[in-house]
Amino acid sequence: MTAKELLQNIIDGDFKTLARVISKIENGNGDDLLKLLPSSTKKIIGVTGPPGAGKSTLVDCLIAEYIQQQKKVGVLCVDPSSAFTHGALLGDRIRMNKWFNHPNVYIRSLATRGSMGGLHPSIIEITDVMKASSLDKIIIETVGVGQTETEIAALADTTVVVLVPESGDEIQTMKAGLMEIADVFVVNKSDRPGADKFVKDLRMMLAPAFQLKQNEIPIIKTVAIEKKGIDDLIQKIKWHESLNELSDKKIKLLTEKAYRLIEQKRMHDINRILLAEEINKSYKNPEFNLYRFIEKY
Amino acid sequence: MTAKELLQNIIDGDFKTLARVISKIENGNGDDLLKLLPSSTKKIIGVTGPPGAGKSTLVDCLIAEYIQQQKKVGVLCVDPSSAFTHGALLGDRIRMNKWFNHPNVYIRSLATRGSMGGLHPSIIEITDVMKASSLDKIIIETVGVGQTETEIAALADTTVVVLVPESGDEIQTMKAGLMEIADVFVVNKSDRPGADKFVKDLRMMLAPAFQLKQNEIPIIKTVAIEKKGIDDLIQKIKWHESLNELSDKKIKLLTEKAYRLIEQKRMHDINRILLAEEINKSYKNPEFNLYRFIEKY
Repeated sequence: MTAKELLQNIIDGDFKTLARVISKIENGNGDDLLKLLPSSTKKIIGVTGPPGAGKSTLVDCLIAEYIQQQKKVGVLCVDPSSAFTHGALLGDRIRMNKWFNHPNVYIRSLATRGSMGGLHPSIIEITDVMKASSLDKIIIETVGVGQTETEIAALADTTVVVLVPESGDEIQTMKAGLMEIADVFVVNKSDRPGADKFVKDLRMMLAPAFQLKQNEIPIIKTVAIEKKGIDDLIQKIKWHESLNELSDKKIKLLTEKAYRLIEQKRMHDINRILLAEEINKSYKNPEFNLYRFIEKY
Repeated sequence: MTAKELLQNIIDGDFKTLARVISKIENGNGDDLLKLLPSSTKKIIGVTGPPGAGKSTLVDCLIAEYIQQQKKVGVLCVDPSSAFTHGALLGDRIRMNKWFNHPNVYIRSLATRGSMGGLHPSIIEITDVMKASSLDKIIIETVGVGQTETEIAALADTTVVVLVPESGDEIQTMKAGLMEIADVFVVNKSDRPGADKFVKDLRMMLAPAFQLKQNEIPIIKTVAIEKKGIDDLIQKIKWHESLNELSDKKIKLLTEKAYRLIEQKRMHDINRILLAEEINKSYKNPEFNLYRFIEKY
């Protein structure tokens, strides 16, 4: 099948072709199709937060709600593949399994590669193909560890940061990062003690952000496991999506995407393993100098 | 002065020339000198951890100890320049001020640039120049937010992660990242309640790491403000530095450095602001396609 035919199938709503093309892109073979992509105004919802905050349960609720609205939903689950968190994070996803065979739901798991964390190297391309498909809503879920939470914000039109009443120390630590990326805060498990105080503290901490963002960042209390607060979250996401039309976040998103794509293209031939072998051969030479070494690249 | 003369002054121990050359590098004008740098076996000590863990006080103790050993000490303080943390983090550094005029201490503060966090773009070059100088010990201190802690580990030969007994939630959140980067853990403010339990929990959490690292990661209890535990820390840093001789961490460090330098070199002409302007001009065209757009770069 030609790239054009593949794309037409995707536009027509064929999830199997979508899956096949995503695999092609993962293997670096999707360029022809990517250059044919029509421009799209579809919005991406990013859901991030610390492990155990209940992101998967919340995404599960979002899927159910959108399905009830007769919408088609795509979900990308991004697992930072650390040797230490791997198992635990994947286990967390099991509760989303019931959607795998639903005709209006497309779920794909992506493991990040590379020891330094960060999202999947082809995630920009993958989400762009999903935007061209018949999917109405596209959700990216990722655990906020390392740099993933800033990367998700550079990819999503609306970033939802999920916390729990016990996240007090976390917001202190991740403060700078979280404040800058969150478009909507969710305080999940808000039936636990301390939820109201936590919301109040978060609100206070957000006060300086008013100067940087035009609008107050909403804080929504949910109990995802009982489906409480989901309507409110859906509404706030919709509200934020409508704001984007007016803001310059779109340009920022596209610029960041373009920058990363150019970077990938230009660094394509540099393989860390081969580079390490070359360095291993040369560095014991007392004349070795890294700045002269890289001149040839 | 020629690059060769500047370098000779730096080797001879002239901190003023060192400062001048670092400024040149920050402005992108240091290439001639960098290509003349002799190879160096000097080790870099990285100190990172969450805000409020007492990193500056600890670095202050390390400086004092090394000075007493008749060594010359260089310190790079890296401040992630977030709109939200800026003031607070800088304030934290005030207690290091007493060293600014000491003849055997060179302190330099670097603000990170770019909205995405991360270390300073020229930090590799800056540390390499410092290694060529008469400094015996080089310490980089940075707050572990966003991606800075993984970047410091890619730059330092020995990475010290500083926590406090209250960091329980933080190690849960940053777990994956921290475990991979830490060569030595410091539990500072260990006179506080819960310190022993925290050390025990940390030790248990580190258990799976044995499979990945050849040696147990030391956990040291300190009370930096009372200079307690500093001898032990100095010893463990020395111990880890000696290990490095045998490990392949050196190759990893050099490879990561080379990769980043090549990346900088190849992306040198791409300015996000100009890119944004270009995208702003084109994206409203219904034919706009990001993959065709980047073809010209």
